[in-house]
Amino acid sequence: MTSGIKKLINSVDSCVDEALYGLVRASEGLSLLKGHRVVIRSDLDNLRGKVALLSGGGSGHEPAHGGYVGAGMLSAAVAGGVFASPPPASILAAILCLHNAGAAGVLLIVKNYTGDRLNFGLAAEQARNHGITVDMVIVADDCAFDRPSKAGRRGLCGTVLIHKLAGALAEEGCPLDQIVLKMTEVLKRIGTLGVGLSPCSVPGCLPSFDLPPGDMELGLGIHGEPGIKRSKVASADEVVKLMIDQMTNPDSQSHLPLKSGDSVVVCVNNLGALSCLEMGVVTRAAIICLENQGVVVARVMSGSFMTSLEMAGVSLTLVRANQETLRLFDARTTALAWPHLSNVCVTGCRYISDPPLQCIDVEFVGEVFHVMRKTLERVCFTLLEKQEELNSLDRAAGDGDCGNTHAQAARAIQEWLQDHRVPGCPGKLLSVLAGLVQEKMGGSSGALYSLFLTAAAGHVTEEQSSAAAWASAIHAGTEAMRRCGASACVGVLFICLWAIMCLLTKRATLGAEGTCNLTAQAGRASYIAAERLTLPDPGAVAVAATLRAVLEVLEGQK
Amino acid sequence: MTSGIKKLINSVDSCVDEALYGLVRASEGLSLLKGHRVVIRSDLDNLRGKVALLSGGGSGHEPAHGGYVGAGMLSAAVAGGVFASPPPASILAAILCLHNAGAAGVLLIVKNYTGDRLNFGLAAEQARNHGITVDMVIVADDCAFDRPSKAGRRGLCGTVLIHKLAGALAEEGCPLDQIVLKMTEVLKRIGTLGVGLSPCSVPGCLPSFDLPPGDMELGLGIHGEPGIKRSKVASADEVVKLMIDQMTNPDSQSHLPLKSGDSVVVCVNNLGALSCLEMGVVTRAAIICLENQGVVVARVMSGSFMTSLEMAGVSLTLVRANQETLRLFDARTTALAWPHLSNVCVTGCRYISDPPLQCIDVEFVGEVFHVMRKTLERVCFTLLEKQEELNSLDRAAGDGDCGNTHAQAARAIQEWLQDHRVPGCPGKLLSVLAGLVQEKMGGSSGALYSLFLTAAAGHVTEEQSSAAAWASAIHAGTEAMRRCGASACVGVLFICLWAIMCLLTKRATLGAEGTCNLTAQAGRASYIAAERLTLPDPGAVAVAATLRAVLEVLEGQK
Repeated sequence: MTSGIKKLINSVDSCVDEALYGLVRASEGLSLLKGHRVVIRSDLDNLRGKVALLSGGGSGHEPAHGGYVGAGMLSAAVAGGVFASPPPASILAAILCLHNAGAAGVLLIVKNYTGDRLNFGLAAEQARNHGITVDMVIVADDCAFDRPSKAGRRGLCGTVLIHKLAGALAEEGCPLDQIVLKMTEVLKRIGTLGVGLSPCSVPGCLPSFDLPPGDMELGLGIHGEPGIKRSKVASADEVVKLMIDQMTNPDSQSHLPLKSGDSVVVCVNNLGALSCLEMGVVTRAAIICLENQGVVVARVMSGSFMTSLEMAGVSLTLVRANQETLRLFDARTTALAWPHLSNVCVTGCRYISDPPLQCIDVEFVGEVFHVMRKTLERVCFTLLEKQEELNSLDRAAGDGDCGNTHAQAARAIQEWLQDHRVPGCPGKLLSVLAGLVQEKMGGSSGALYSLFLTAAAGHVTEEQSSAAAWASAIHAGTEAMRRCGASACVGVLFICLWAIMCLLTKRATLGAEGTCNLTAQAGRASYIAAERLTLPDPGAVAVAATLRAVLEVLEGQK
Repeated sequence: MTSGIKKLINSVDSCVDEALYGLVRASEGLSLLKGHRVVIRSDLDNLRGKVALLSGGGSGHEPAHGGYVGAGMLSAAVAGGVFASPPPASILAAILCLHNAGAAGVLLIVKNYTGDRLNFGLAAEQARNHGITVDMVIVADDCAFDRPSKAGRRGLCGTVLIHKLAGALAEEGCPLDQIVLKMTEVLKRIGTLGVGLSPCSVPGCLPSFDLPPGDMELGLGIHGEPGIKRSKVASADEVVKLMIDQMTNPDSQSHLPLKSGDSVVVCVNNLGALSCLEMGVVTRAAIICLENQGVVVARVMSGSFMTSLEMAGVSLTLVRANQETLRLFDARTTALAWPHLSNVCVTGCRYISDPPLQCIDVEFVGEVFHVMRKTLERVCFTLLEKQEELNSLDRAAGDGDCGNTHAQAARAIQEWLQDHRVPGCPGKLLSVLAGLVQEKMGGSSGALYSLFLTAAAGHVTEEQSSAAAWASAIHAGTEAMRRCGASACVGVLFICLWAIMCLLTKRATLGAEGTCNLTAQAGRASYIAAERLTLPDPGAVAVAATLRAVLEVLEGQK
């Protein structure tokens, strides 16, 4: 482990072969060419009379290029070592295989790097000496450099889109020279720019560059080479704006001309280690930034398409699209790494649904139960009084907020009492209490109380509030708890509900004891060893205090 | 930036909403429920008379769960904050929407965490009070703990497979109670285990745990909680073996019973930041490890399915599969995050293709040209003699190996001369030299020489070696160079080829000067500022030396 970046790879020599094996075995329609790092379609018969597409390059950019082999995209892909161009012998072997299968010519799709151009070019010459019709498209979509060196713009994630568009043309039966012509034209309409929050490292090597905490690198390549500009990490909105401004800046020789009213296909590409959450955030930023400039976002793809090992970063690729671009983009492919995509224009597509109508009716028209109001007031007062005591008990076993959450519930009930009549139907009261604790109490306690009260509520009505009805309400509540795996808490709630039942049936005889041997079996406190629980459960104490308040009111009524 | 882990997210409050917006806008068939973090199918009409499926949970696990919404999987997904359970009000709103669309009952698929069970359970009770048929399946697939706590096994990536299998059943029109019954049975056949090489961090928070350099954590959850065992990072083969042993160990209460002859579906899940290259390596290791135990690998999926933000790690999920499992697994879905997959058994499927027949015929039957042999010997001798001089020149502008690469070529030609006759056909000789330098010389030089020689070779034959033929050979060579973007190097090679032409046409009059004002325009030296190139280009010097050797031999022949 010399790199400081941990990897599940012991051998830089074998990792490429192992990864290709993993890809090919996990896919139905792919084969490995024996003796070469070549992923090739198993159904070569289907190439007869059509142009075959071959791409490839250094490894470390997975799923490029093996993941794009399939009907409607590449016919084969050649892999080099990590960040190293593949040997011409393997490229030639792949060309010969495709030729032997009856392909009507072979198109090589090559990223603009010296090594790849030379090795693919050499194999092409050798193939021509064998009488094979071969042509080459060089992808140079990098928008980083305002004045590119004579080596030209680098080939980046735009290559994947060329795979797709050229692949769709080949599948339609388009001849080789036409595909080359059309792709040469499309290449003028593709631009890519990357930003990195971290470097990457070739297995066994040091990270490709240093990036201090809080910094990001704009305009980097896909081989760990640093970018053109370093700045502080900003929000996705700001970063995306910076990227699109650079990509479309007319003062740059490598810019993509883009104006209001243009349609684009957008590819948001994870360079390796950006979280999927961040990818969603960046995708949103890209759509909004382009639409704010009056650009029509026709299609969006978001995911890992052309990576740079484990670099935490993202690249944006834009293709100015016409009707043919979209037709080819939407065409069917079986390639493993091409995502499920919409074929509807993103801009203008409805994406908000109306929510259902208000789901809980809180209009009550029953007799006002003054005793219930008085009881609830006393319960709230007691819980607020005991806030600190409950917190203190909870600090021993949980996170010390039991008093706070019960106080929140108490305040919520107090507020509700100020401008509502207490319903005469006990079931409706339970529903109201359930809604209040669910919305205002928070934490597991709120959910637990609410769950029990909600499940019980349907079983007691104004007409039906006998002991038997209450018993079935309690049963429904405990069943709901059991389904949610909160069996132990049922003890606490059972007592609570039993008390309310007693109250409402005017047979208030139950005391409030015997709760200190309960063990929390859900929530944060469930992860604490039982031996540490020598103090009573604070939730149980809260319930006991509630009951005492209820009993006091009832005693006063007698 | 308090976390030390850089993120393109400024606000932990808004990132979930932003990511959901990104997902939904990029997809055709999805909508957001106004006022809620709910992703829901846009084509709710298609749910009429079928069971609707609802899942969800905390965010940070993307593409779960929103990415699995679509025909054949989920009908809707509810998101909470990062690693926080969603509020019951949003869950209920989603249930009501699905019910209002005419669904024949709603199935909630819930990961086994206290918060999720309570909040989904509560919403279910509320929905039942509205007369809606609701049921719940709890996924608890974690194999980490030999003796799970009373909270039970955690819900991990197996949840995605339940989405798929239950979704396929619902699409077939299977009634709710039957789906619950079948999933309850499937859940006994699912197991998952994760391993992490890094922690993750909730935006704005510190990393969830510390992991020293070189260590990995086995059996961790998907919320940044540490695992059950810490050990040194090993190779993918060893780590996967360790994982599968733990998952299938009969001494563990949470093991997955698995024996030789069983069929499994394997899901290799990127926890966030593992490189795609490593994912391929781990996928291979999983297939091989299982097959070595006699297990039939029926299907494999590999990718990011249930992540834990930017954790560098991987989880394995195994499902013991019967015919029905595979039928449901293979069924069509439009969900964005479900991958293109093979529906053919992995074990036993052919994945190696035969390479094409030997592509370059090196059998020559021409007149032996003694002068050519003598010339080649002298060239080799000269290049070996000049090895250090060339290296020294190259150190000033490149990586100092120009002499070494030319020496490699020289030795390769010497070896070849030992047991081969020199072909009489000049084109064949050029092909032989092209093959030798391509295979043995390496680097850009090897590819450049080889490219030029290969392209030229077809234009000169035994019958056709006039000055005109050589001129067209040179033209073909330079054209090949131009196509590969190596225009400058053409200067060097032009001179070289011109010399060979002169040699073979017995009009050797060309000297070897004027090469020191060449500028490298490809290869490593192309990135060096021109001002630094005060010394002659070492490649040009090598060519000049070659030419001098050729001329000396020819002079001796006169």
